[in-house]
Amino acid sequence: MSTLFEQRKQMIQHRYEALISLKNQPLFSENGIFERYANPALTGAHAPLVWRYDFNPETNPYFMERIGVNAAFNPGAIELDGKFYLVARMEGVDRKSFFAVAESDSPVDGFRLWDHPVVMPETEEPDINVYDMRLVHHADGWIYGIFCTERKDPDAAPGDLSSAVAQAGIARTRDLKTWERLPDLKTGSAQQRNVVLHPEFVDGCYAFYTRPQDGFIEAGSGGGIGWGLSNSMNPAIITSESIIDRRYYHTIKEVKNGQGPAPIKTPKGWLHVAHGVRNTAAGLRYVVYAFLTDLTDPSKLLHAPAGHLIAPEGEERIGDVSNVVFINGLIARDNGDVYLYYASSDTRCHVASTTVDRLLDYVLHTPEDPLRSYACVQQRIALVDRNLQYLTTAQLQS
Amino acid sequence: MSTLFEQRKQMIQHRYEALISLKNQPLFSENGIFERYANPALTGAHAPLVWRYDFNPETNPYFMERIGVNAAFNPGAIELDGKFYLVARMEGVDRKSFFAVAESDSPVDGFRLWDHPVVMPETEEPDINVYDMRLVHHADGWIYGIFCTERKDPDAAPGDLSSAVAQAGIARTRDLKTWERLPDLKTGSAQQRNVVLHPEFVDGCYAFYTRPQDGFIEAGSGGGIGWGLSNSMNPAIITSESIIDRRYYHTIKEVKNGQGPAPIKTPKGWLHVAHGVRNTAAGLRYVVYAFLTDLTDPSKLLHAPAGHLIAPEGEERIGDVSNVVFINGLIARDNGDVYLYYASSDTRCHVASTTVDRLLDYVLHTPEDPLRSYACVQQRIALVDRNLQYLTTAQLQS
Repeated sequence: MSTLFEQRKQMIQHRYEALISLKNQPLFSENGIFERYANPALTGAHAPLVWRYDFNPETNPYFMERIGVNAAFNPGAIELDGKFYLVARMEGVDRKSFFAVAESDSPVDGFRLWDHPVVMPETEEPDINVYDMRLVHHADGWIYGIFCTERKDPDAAPGDLSSAVAQAGIARTRDLKTWERLPDLKTGSAQQRNVVLHPEFVDGCYAFYTRPQDGFIEAGSGGGIGWGLSNSMNPAIITSESIIDRRYYHTIKEVKNGQGPAPIKTPKGWLHVAHGVRNTAAGLRYVVYAFLTDLTDPSKLLHAPAGHLIAPEGEERIGDVSNVVFINGLIARDNGDVYLYYASSDTRCHVASTTVDRLLDYVLHTPEDPLRSYACVQQRIALVDRNLQYLTTAQLQS
Repeated sequence: MSTLFEQRKQMIQHRYEALISLKNQPLFSENGIFERYANPALTGAHAPLVWRYDFNPETNPYFMERIGVNAAFNPGAIELDGKFYLVARMEGVDRKSFFAVAESDSPVDGFRLWDHPVVMPETEEPDINVYDMRLVHHADGWIYGIFCTERKDPDAAPGDLSSAVAQAGIARTRDLKTWERLPDLKTGSAQQRNVVLHPEFVDGCYAFYTRPQDGFIEAGSGGGIGWGLSNSMNPAIITSESIIDRRYYHTIKEVKNGQGPAPIKTPKGWLHVAHGVRNTAAGLRYVVYAFLTDLTDPSKLLHAPAGHLIAPEGEERIGDVSNVVFINGLIARDNGDVYLYYASSDTRCHVASTTVDRLLDYVLHTPEDPLRSYACVQQRIALVDRNLQYLTTAQLQS
């Protein structure tokens, strides 16, 4: 047996186990709304070694990578029987995305991917790429995975190899191992992305958050977070979409926005996290924001704090697609703890912790966007003056 | 004599010599295919001090830079008489590129630029910018430099100061010091970039790798790595171009691709490195990939491993044009060692080391891209199952 082979194998196994067993620590939170953690929860380097290397020294004498993994990001997330699962978007060096399940006893570290990636059955129209799964444990008993399926645009101009069509793929499972593929969601929009299944029936129907769009990248005349009902999941058909969270000029969601994971049910309403996009000279900038909708009518917007909840920071700013944070997975535990699994720059997956109480406090007491500079200054001055008055009074009383 | 002048001069000379004499160390390679090195091989800071400062204290009392250098990247590379040479794309702070020769006794460090940059003669149509030279020691005995020459588009719309025309400039030399400029390559394509001369005659002709394109940035309906023959180098005229490595939807070369340096002759075929480009929400992403063509017919593709060989990492991700790795220079030594001189983000030049054997092993045994997610998962599962079976058997036997 080759010495080089054995040396490399042992070093790589050692480094891999060190990565997986790394303990994660919360960082001090400047804004107090959530705590980031020191290390990513999942990266491309978490991909099992049997996925990447040929372990046979006769066919891989240099112990080289045979099928590399470029990134792990945008995971759906779910807690089952006290274990934490991420269904991540894994991207090979071939630029194809696929799904894989990472499991841990802890919500913040120790995530280990299963030996086999998810085999997601195709419909009669093969997926070229699949990604950004929203996992929902629905009231009907199934766990649904709604994800983006991407195919080449049949109407692309000759020589245009980038134009694609995005639709919402639907699959269901009991155990995250075996997946039953259902027909893609049908809506009146040319394309769909960021489609999310609401966890409960609404008016006896399956309810969806949608993101109608004209083109593959551009939301176009459409856009906003939409809402629609379907009598069935097999097939799921939405005949009427309404917009529950619009895009606005000169905001964090000027260019486009989309629902994150399924919302959290709270006593004050359905608590949503979503992503918003604006354009810059260096490309699009993605941030995560939050809002609250009505408990009995989840399509009715109640509170929309101005601006972003999470924007890229430090290492998060840089990656395959820089200046992006994106979320499509969270776990809200019965004890009120919330874990946000957000990804940065289409490269790696992070975790942040908070609670339902803190998120509600944030959503209810952060002022809404008055949509122009002068009004924003007035809003800020009101806070300043309340503070100065309070601090003066407190000083007098002490 | 000014104290400030002397102090600054001494400090800058000291720092410069420290930079040039810095020893380079290979980093551990996770994929085992090549080793990156800790420091860049060449940067803008390597530009000789006499290029940048006026050393006369009377005319430069502050010892300030007079003609700054912005970057050093995308070098052609060649070994001559046991010495290693990079003919780099130097970019002044004036944003004009020019060529300069860096020489070292080592392939990985110690590169020192000659006192004078290359004087590249112009044709009757002056070059506005020249860059990305491919150096080839041709079978005819000459060393050829094929490079991109860029001129303003005479048909640009009024007010459009960006539109340009790219063509392949050709020069030859015996010593890298004196260059004879030949007429630009003529082809049937509107523009040409990333043109490379094959080192041997093919059917008694000079053979070129080309990259036909419609516009200055866009490959348009054309694109792919082309191939064409010319009876002569003075002038070089290609009347028929065929495509040997196409672009494909949803791959690392979806938007465009181009040949790197001239290919390496190996017993299994001609070994190529090239660059591939895809679009993202944060701009274009350039990676380096590899493929193998037939020994007797270099235009016949034999093996094309899926995905990238090198993608930007860490510091490489950021620069004047972020998210780019690009290669147009390598040195393949007689002992089988290969040095890849790749540049990152249009800013600096790195070196990676490998061998012909390892690169061939990579190219021959990395699976090809099956072009859709489900098939990629099947490919990966086949590797996983082979590994699990091998590891179980190996365990039973031990």
